[in-house]
Amino acid sequence: MPEPNHIVIIGGTACGPKAAARARRCDPHAEITIIEQGPNLSTATCGLPYYISGVIKDKGPMVARPPEHFRDVLGMTVLIGTRATAIDRKKRTVTVTDLKTKQDSSIAYDKLVLATGSAPVRPGWAGSDLKGIFTLSDLPDASAIKKYAAGLANKEAVIVGAGLIGLEMAEALAALGLKVTVLEALGWALPQLLDEEMAASLAKHLASKGVILRCGERVNGFSGDKAGRVASVITGGGEAKAGLVLLSLGVRPEVGLVREAGLKIGALGGIAVNEHLQTSDPAIYAGGDGVEVTNIITRKPMLAPMGSTANKHGRIIGSNVTGGRLTFPGVLGTAICKLFDYNAGRTGLSAAQAQAAGYETITALVPAPEHASYYPGAREIVVKLVAEKSSGKILGGQVVGTGEAAKRIDVLAAALSSGATIDSLADLDLAYAPPFNSAMDPLHNAANVIRNKRAGLARTLTMAEVKARLDRGDDFILLDVRSAPEWKKERIKAEQVRFLPLTELRQRYNELPRDAEIVIYCHTSVRAYQAQRLLDGEGFGNVRFMEGSLSVWPYETESG
Amino acid sequence: MPEPNHIVIIGGTACGPKAAARARRCDPHAEITIIEQGPNLSTATCGLPYYISGVIKDKGPMVARPPEHFRDVLGMTVLIGTRATAIDRKKRTVTVTDLKTKQDSSIAYDKLVLATGSAPVRPGWAGSDLKGIFTLSDLPDASAIKKYAAGLANKEAVIVGAGLIGLEMAEALAALGLKVTVLEALGWALPQLLDEEMAASLAKHLASKGVILRCGERVNGFSGDKAGRVASVITGGGEAKAGLVLLSLGVRPEVGLVREAGLKIGALGGIAVNEHLQTSDPAIYAGGDGVEVTNIITRKPMLAPMGSTANKHGRIIGSNVTGGRLTFPGVLGTAICKLFDYNAGRTGLSAAQAQAAGYETITALVPAPEHASYYPGAREIVVKLVAEKSSGKILGGQVVGTGEAAKRIDVLAAALSSGATIDSLADLDLAYAPPFNSAMDPLHNAANVIRNKRAGLARTLTMAEVKARLDRGDDFILLDVRSAPEWKKERIKAEQVRFLPLTELRQRYNELPRDAEIVIYCHTSVRAYQAQRLLDGEGFGNVRFMEGSLSVWPYETESG
Repeated sequence: MPEPNHIVIIGGTACGPKAAARARRCDPHAEITIIEQGPNLSTATCGLPYYISGVIKDKGPMVARPPEHFRDVLGMTVLIGTRATAIDRKKRTVTVTDLKTKQDSSIAYDKLVLATGSAPVRPGWAGSDLKGIFTLSDLPDASAIKKYAAGLANKEAVIVGAGLIGLEMAEALAALGLKVTVLEALGWALPQLLDEEMAASLAKHLASKGVILRCGERVNGFSGDKAGRVASVITGGGEAKAGLVLLSLGVRPEVGLVREAGLKIGALGGIAVNEHLQTSDPAIYAGGDGVEVTNIITRKPMLAPMGSTANKHGRIIGSNVTGGRLTFPGVLGTAICKLFDYNAGRTGLSAAQAQAAGYETITALVPAPEHASYYPGAREIVVKLVAEKSSGKILGGQVVGTGEAAKRIDVLAAALSSGATIDSLADLDLAYAPPFNSAMDPLHNAANVIRNKRAGLARTLTMAEVKARLDRGDDFILLDVRSAPEWKKERIKAEQVRFLPLTELRQRYNELPRDAEIVIYCHTSVRAYQAQRLLDGEGFGNVRFMEGSLSVWPYETESG
Repeated sequence: MPEPNHIVIIGGTACGPKAAARARRCDPHAEITIIEQGPNLSTATCGLPYYISGVIKDKGPMVARPPEHFRDVLGMTVLIGTRATAIDRKKRTVTVTDLKTKQDSSIAYDKLVLATGSAPVRPGWAGSDLKGIFTLSDLPDASAIKKYAAGLANKEAVIVGAGLIGLEMAEALAALGLKVTVLEALGWALPQLLDEEMAASLAKHLASKGVILRCGERVNGFSGDKAGRVASVITGGGEAKAGLVLLSLGVRPEVGLVREAGLKIGALGGIAVNEHLQTSDPAIYAGGDGVEVTNIITRKPMLAPMGSTANKHGRIIGSNVTGGRLTFPGVLGTAICKLFDYNAGRTGLSAAQAQAAGYETITALVPAPEHASYYPGAREIVVKLVAEKSSGKILGGQVVGTGEAAKRIDVLAAALSSGATIDSLADLDLAYAPPFNSAMDPLHNAANVIRNKRAGLARTLTMAEVKARLDRGDDFILLDVRSAPEWKKERIKAEQVRFLPLTELRQRYNELPRDAEIVIYCHTSVRAYQAQRLLDGEGFGNVRFMEGSLSVWPYETESG
């Protein structure tokens, strides 16, 4: 029998255990050692907000496999409560410290796997050491937050950062009976995921659930009470009372060991790996939150810490440390979250990100019911599709709303991965039956809007552009073409607004001045586009419509 | 001003109205006439089962746009209650009959659009003219079925054909209080969509809802009572009492007009069109249920009557009759249905269809929760993935179960459209958060099972193969590696079955005879695969596992 392959894996959350299990399946005779500083292996950290809220009652099932599984079933050496402190690449050894006994020892490897993950960003703001200021990255954090929240006299929580974890935790802390304020330094919620206009209805939804979202407000520090507990967050704009503070400012790769071992670190601060997930030392592989991955659209490195990617990395590494040669194609930055009764997802680039990456973009903003509107219970979604203007290649998409978002994000992810264009998206043979979809999926409609724009048939303004014109007092007609009952119920409040239902437009268009600039809106833009084409046909020279229309208009309206 | 383009459209359900509306948007000056023999335009016929069941209360919203919309808003000539009876291709005229006045007239066209749809298959079985035997293709059919069911003394309904409409109608008629029997001549439910093993749990679900499914039973005719009403269905195997009968044997393209006009008809009986949806006469376009479409996988023609395709056809035709040159890429045969609390979908080819088309296939059968199992409410799905063995190219997929199926079908549809392989599917960056998915989507797992099979790591038998061996009394060990409580609760009943939990297998494998043939099962196959690899590693030479395992095992079990 040949000498067995010694595989040592540092990190036991997602990528590490997956790599270990896969390596065992590929090579029944490998000697595998897995090193984890915490008490558990294979923890579902993405479930932590739901464990805190009580939606997940029992933390047991969040640990996918107990350490005994890795030891007894998979036949590995499991070192929990153990920290890797140094890598000697020449000798191919890892130094580890037993955190209980403080004893050091050395473990030899043929292949080393770094699944060391990431750590929450904690800026050095004044007062950061006060009690009651938390970050969330593992089960002990979650238990500490739960316990602290239960003992609070001041039931006010402040979350710093309106990203994925921050907003999921807003729901969780509200479920614990806390009054939640979210502070976001940038201009809107989920700024890394959504373009500004897509975040407006999310902000409304959070407000309807009692969550106060304060955007564009930077934190300077914290003040505490006599017992050393946090009492408020001091911001550029004032302060926010807080019995509990959660910092959710993103994560940074853990690269201490890697740096000391002299392995290459990328420009973004993550471990640099090739497509086989090998570091600059071919005997050392790395995956999960700690590494830089390739963005499939831009082909540039990015940090995209996600449990889904960590699992894929684990499988690839487990194969490659046992003689395989699998490659990881990269990521699209796909992400989704459930926030109360609202869903928000993104894949690929937002319009802002695409423009920052140098693309000239063309976009569509399409409000739509999640399935056939005549089938009961259809909730609303809004799709934003981003494509390259010259080629029509899809660059990204966002879906938000109370309706089904994950399906559309995943379809876009599949389309983006193959370099699809809006033409191919428009005719995708998606599954249709009234409980699941409309005959035309909202993605089909979004693709067709972009086709209509590229063909010069549809000409649009954004809501922000219309609002700016109204605020400047520009001389134009903002034409509402909905029905009289809709008009009475709610309409845009501005002196430029004029009402002429689409149903009467063909008979009455002569009432409109031919030389005026006309911008049309309706409820979702479907009728507004029809009206634009009708007026085009009658020789009006300066007609556009406002994409998204009243259903997503985030500004003031009036009624009556 | 140039002479306007005269566009005449025959057919007002889906493709026709869509073509009309699109033509109007592309060409504001075209003269457009739309001819429909029924009373409505733009009817959502896919909603009819839900209208019959009462889930959809009001038929109003099932008519997307009233005829007035096409006349007053879109400025067209609308001829409802009018039948097109002849096409004169030389003179470019259509003869129409007003069904009320019986008056004929002639309409000139520059471009003609045939959106004449399909008609339900009605075999000439004895007794077919008895009262109470229905087909379902439009609102009048639906209203007639509703009315007849309400007046029934014998509350027994028989549905002939367990296809999409047949099974949707089983749910609808059960909701009306009828005792429903479904007769299917082929061997299992949804035989055009699902492979046999995928239909087993659907049959169980239907049975749990009181629907009796009789497969492999051919209809010979009907017998009636003295009032001329149907009383029973006579089959090869006996009879089935029936107060009401629905024939759901699929549809055939309506090609009477087309044949008389001498236009080309394809081998499958549908109108032959090119990729621009032009018939053999370049001035005549056709789309919707009546035409043959290209299967994207096989590149061969197929009939795939779906409202989703009809709408896409309408948009393309509307563009092309006004100077455009859009192409239709074809279909994947994607379909989905909700049957009580169960979902079943398919895209691309089933394994049987792929083999019939000449492919050597490799498949995966993966039971999985719809989202992270530790997040509450995860329902089950089963994914079957079909790929070409030599290339790994994906050929199709099926998803069934009470859990989320539509998303996975749509992701596969997007992947299939780009010619994706199982390798690209395995690493798709799909949206992950515990309420929406597991870190690895069931599609990822299915792709990885195929990769493991191709790599020789995973070796499997199907459930049917195992059952056949048990029935023959073959000498092998059927090894159950689940936990003791699972074993006690339910297990496969056979003398070949032996119990040895995976948790003890590494310590106790020597209890198993090394020279025996061993087939392993667990609950979903995850542990069975681990056990196979463990025994492989210990030198056992003839070990496989049963794909799908007990969670989808459709045969007898025992407990205690």
